[in-house]
Amino acid sequence: MELGLVGLGKMGGNMRERIRRAGHTVIGYDRNPDLADVHSLEELVGKLKGPRVVWVMVPAGAATQSTIDELAELLEPGDVVVDGGNSRWTDDEKHAEELAAKGIGFVDCGVSGGVWGLENGYALMYGGDAENVAKVQPIFDALKPEGDLGSVHAGKVGAGHFAKMVHNGIEYAMMQAYAEGWELLEKVDSVTDVREVFRSWQEGTVIRSWLLDLAVNALDEDEHLEQLRGYAQDSGEGRWTVEAAIDHAVPLPAITASLFARFASRQEDSPQMKMIAALRNQFGGHAVEKK
Amino acid sequence: MELGLVGLGKMGGNMRERIRRAGHTVIGYDRNPDLADVHSLEELVGKLKGPRVVWVMVPAGAATQSTIDELAELLEPGDVVVDGGNSRWTDDEKHAEELAAKGIGFVDCGVSGGVWGLENGYALMYGGDAENVAKVQPIFDALKPEGDLGSVHAGKVGAGHFAKMVHNGIEYAMMQAYAEGWELLEKVDSVTDVREVFRSWQEGTVIRSWLLDLAVNALDEDEHLEQLRGYAQDSGEGRWTVEAAIDHAVPLPAITASLFARFASRQEDSPQMKMIAALRNQFGGHAVEKK
Amino acid sequence: MELGLVGLGKMGGNMRERIRRAGHTVIGYDRNPDLADVHSLEELVGKLKGPRVVWVMVPAGAATQSTIDELAELLEPGDVVVDGGNSRWTDDEKHAEELAAKGIGFVDCGVSGGVWGLENGYALMYGGDAENVAKVQPIFDALKPEGDLGSVHAGKVGAGHFAKMVHNGIEYAMMQAYAEGWELLEKVDSVTDVREVFRSWQEGTVIRSWLLDLAVNALDEDEHLEQLRGYAQDSGEGRWTVEAAIDHAVPLPAITASLFARFASRQEDSPQMKMIAALRNQFGGHAVEKK
Amino acid sequence: MELGLVGLGKMGGNMRERIRRAGHTVIGYDRNPDLADVHSLEELVGKLKGPRVVWVMVPAGAATQSTIDELAELLEPGDVVVDGGNSRWTDDEKHAEELAAKGIGFVDCGVSGGVWGLENGYALMYGGDAENVAKVQPIFDALKPEGDLGSVHAGKVGAGHFAKMVHNGIEYAMMQAYAEGWELLEKVDSVTDVREVFRSWQEGTVIRSWLLDLAVNALDEDEHLEQLRGYAQDSGEGRWTVEAAIDHAVPLPAITASLFARFASRQEDSPQMKMIAALRNQFGGHAVEKK
Repeated sequence: MELGLVGLGKMGGNMRERIRRAGHTVIGYDRNPDLADVHSLEELVGKLKGPRVVWVMVPAGAATQSTIDELAELLEPGDVVVDGGNSRWTDDEKHAEELAAKGIGFVDCGVSGGVWGLENGYALMYGGDAENVAKVQPIFDALKPEGDLGSVHAGKVGAGHFAKMVHNGIEYAMMQAYAEGWELLEKVDSVTDVREVFRSWQEGTVIRSWLLDLAVNALDEDEHLEQLRGYAQDSGEGRWTVEAAIDHAVPLPAITASLFARFASRQEDSPQMKMIAALRNQFGGHAVEKK
Repeated sequence: MELGLVGLGKMGGNMRERIRRAGHTVIGYDRNPDLADVHSLEELVGKLKGPRVVWVMVPAGAATQSTIDELAELLEPGDVVVDGGNSRWTDDEKHAEELAAKGIGFVDCGVSGGVWGLENGYALMYGGDAENVAKVQPIFDALKPEGDLGSVHAGKVGAGHFAKMVHNGIEYAMMQAYAEGWELLEKVDSVTDVREVFRSWQEGTVIRSWLLDLAVNALDEDEHLEQLRGYAQDSGEGRWTVEAAIDHAVPLPAITASLFARFASRQEDSPQMKMIAALRNQFGGHAVEKK
Repeated sequence: MELGLVGLGKMGGNMRERIRRAGHTVIGYDRNPDLADVHSLEELVGKLKGPRVVWVMVPAGAATQSTIDELAELLEPGDVVVDGGNSRWTDDEKHAEELAAKGIGFVDCGVSGGVWGLENGYALMYGGDAENVAKVQPIFDALKPEGDLGSVHAGKVGAGHFAKMVHNGIEYAMMQAYAEGWELLEKVDSVTDVREVFRSWQEGTVIRSWLLDLAVNALDEDEHLEQLRGYAQDSGEGRWTVEAAIDHAVPLPAITASLFARFASRQEDSPQMKMIAALRNQFGGHAVEKK
Repeated sequence: MELGLVGLGKMGGNMRERIRRAGHTVIGYDRNPDLADVHSLEELVGKLKGPRVVWVMVPAGAATQSTIDELAELLEPGDVVVDGGNSRWTDDEKHAEELAAKGIGFVDCGVSGGVWGLENGYALMYGGDAENVAKVQPIFDALKPEGDLGSVHAGKVGAGHFAKMVHNGIEYAMMQAYAEGWELLEKVDSVTDVREVFRSWQEGTVIRSWLLDLAVNALDEDEHLEQLRGYAQDSGEGRWTVEAAIDHAVPLPAITASLFARFASRQEDSPQMKMIAALRNQFGGHAVEKK
């Protein structure tokens, strides 16, 4: 089939390649003309035969919104827009309504896979009406990993991004789990080869996983991670997971602890710990470290 | 080679079977005569040719201590005792010294594998002098999974149990990660099939793992886990992991949150939340729920 | 001076009384005619001489919004609306703009004091332009506790509710601190009189506070809190505090833990702990508690 | 009455002064001869008339142990030793048994008060048999704050140090509560005077406390705590509180979060966050910060 693909960055570019390898036609648009097959969204839409499917793969927020606004003007009833970016699930319903007013369908799709997706396939979680999903299905099948697993029609509009968001929340806590264990092992004199302990865990243990394999890769590159700073960004999904949990009164202690650890890692000095130091000094005359 | 194996319960019995399948001779002793090959530790030691290797696979604490005490009297210089139970790593140094006073070697070994070990192999983490480890190596090779992974000489005496303990701490937080994500997905209306979301994650995602596979198994047996109570025991290892972290001033927020969630799950009613309710009532006249 | 007061429930009714005791004229309106001095907002506005000050003390959200919408139609340029309810700080800017379009001023005010406020005074945190604050100042002075403390012009519009929100977040963690300590003391055999320990802490300790005094009151009524269920509601402020922290990438581990403990206290059975139980059963054959 | 006091450091020296002001005779010993009234424990014991009370106020652990060992040799049946240091409660039972074997009584006493104790009195929590406590009572009465509060016979041997330990655990979480709130307020543009917000909270709020008063003192000295590093030590009591909670399966999320925040504050770079950074780089090609 034919697909219009908007956004040809690191993710979008690799996805175009994987879809083409599956035999589909992809017309790609990007603001960067070096990456693009066409010069405008208008040209992209004009080149596609209806019913069109246009996959939006641009940064969440303003860029996605303006792309959808523009497509709402350009597309025709029966066409479908897929938002494959990292939009917050709460945006999906708004986008679906905006497009539905023009008779255009909407599907949201969370995509996981990172730099490994081109070769191994992308995990896909999508939400929307069965009718709209069906129009995109050949593309989902091209992008997903081989076999029966790796893609799911998770539910209504918004369910795809919600499931992907929770996936990332779980990912935060799993990474934190390995990281905490690694730090503790590194601190203990009796354990003389932490890297080999991690490596051994890749078979037969309860904690074997792909993330563990990656941890071993990282330790093979730099046994004690001495080249790195203990500094971690967070994307929106971790934050949104905690916010969604608060909305539903679900306690999320491990995932939230993992998010907060990242926040703290980015602080040069901790304001709250200054207050702790100040209080200790006030009541106990405890020495404080001055700058 | 020949092995004396003390403790033939669920774990020990399966390990005997796996070692025998690898062609070794195992003489097993258990307090339960229906399981045992010999009637006493004395008989077990008598039947082994020196240098003997005796693997102790009994409950941590008093049972392990009394077994090691008895073996210290029965064995001879050059023999080796392996503690394959769930002993706290701090016990290992004491046991090593006690046996070393008689010229007997000691190796501690953390064993993971549960009910799957017989067929898939047991993950092994062991600690001790190279000389003593070498005497046990054929048994380690028989027990471990096929391939290069799944067993490690982690370091000095105590390192095996320490590494296994940290493994379990990591396991707590990974389980908690999936559990938190699952609860949140179950709460959201737009996600109509949480089980299929979990199933899809088994390929292509960052969070694919053996524990995730098990979660899917569990959901296939009982889609919403309606047959279960939200009640989880904890073994010593989770607690010891947190204690070791405190000893080394390592922050362990996700693992500790996971341990505390288990504690809370076993309380019929939460004393601390009674105090919260009482305080809210005192300052705000907020209604409290009386029993 | 004259004040229009909208909302005469538990808080509003006592505030009217305290303001009147200070010699001001209060005209109160409530949907419940038994509590009200006038029959409508229109009548209330008609009875006040300009420049009018109208204090809104109704539930946050829809009720506050509709009251402000109505006042925007009734009031005149130079009048001031005070939102003294528990509105989210993000609503304040919207309300200020809506009213400013009609030349009407806006001040947001967080009010603490609960059932103790009538006699002891209400702690007040307010935000807005100096000009608008000045018009309300006599009322703030009437409501606040005696002495120099207990009220603050915290900053711009929204600062009052923000400061009150953070106050409540701190309150959550302080209550949790005492509650955790109390539960631990109750568990230990050697401590034979926990209530007297709490009572003793009221003088000379680092942890003496008004909340501690309340805890002692509660224990005097019910030494082991046996009449209560460990079940605690949460108001919006605790949730918003965590959300504000996430917006600003501030780690808030103790406050968030306190919020999550309340969430968990309201669950009959914990879905996430069902998943933990299911996983333990899958890999270890651990017994689970069936319903 | 007469008291032998061992340890005349910052705490012990002030306590000697307060006891003397109450009219009692204190004979003090310290390894530092400039501080001491006598030259040895032997001389101290020789100068006291029986039944003697000797208060030990030296660092927990080895120093306390050796002092008690020495006193066990020097004292006579009917004498009483008080351990007023920060010993772990688990040491108390051992010390009581050691002394009981000689007929000597033992009382453990947790002391709070810091640099404020000399003038305001020390909060005291003590454990032991009524008979032994009675012999020390006049000293307790001299040290405690005026009024009915501030001291408690908490229970059996060990209960004093246990109660003091929990006091400190609560203190950790209360300090963390204020610190988290302060950091969040400092981050928000609309709140223009955080110090005045804190000051206002000293009256009429739910969160007024002595610690809050100290926080205001600290902010008056350095409004944004710019002179301090966000670096906080922890004493043993916070760690022991968490360990005691683990022993009793009591969840302690807020206190533990506070302890971990201190651990993290002392790390120049966080090993666990290096692992997080490494994993993000592995799966997503996310940029990492190199040293």
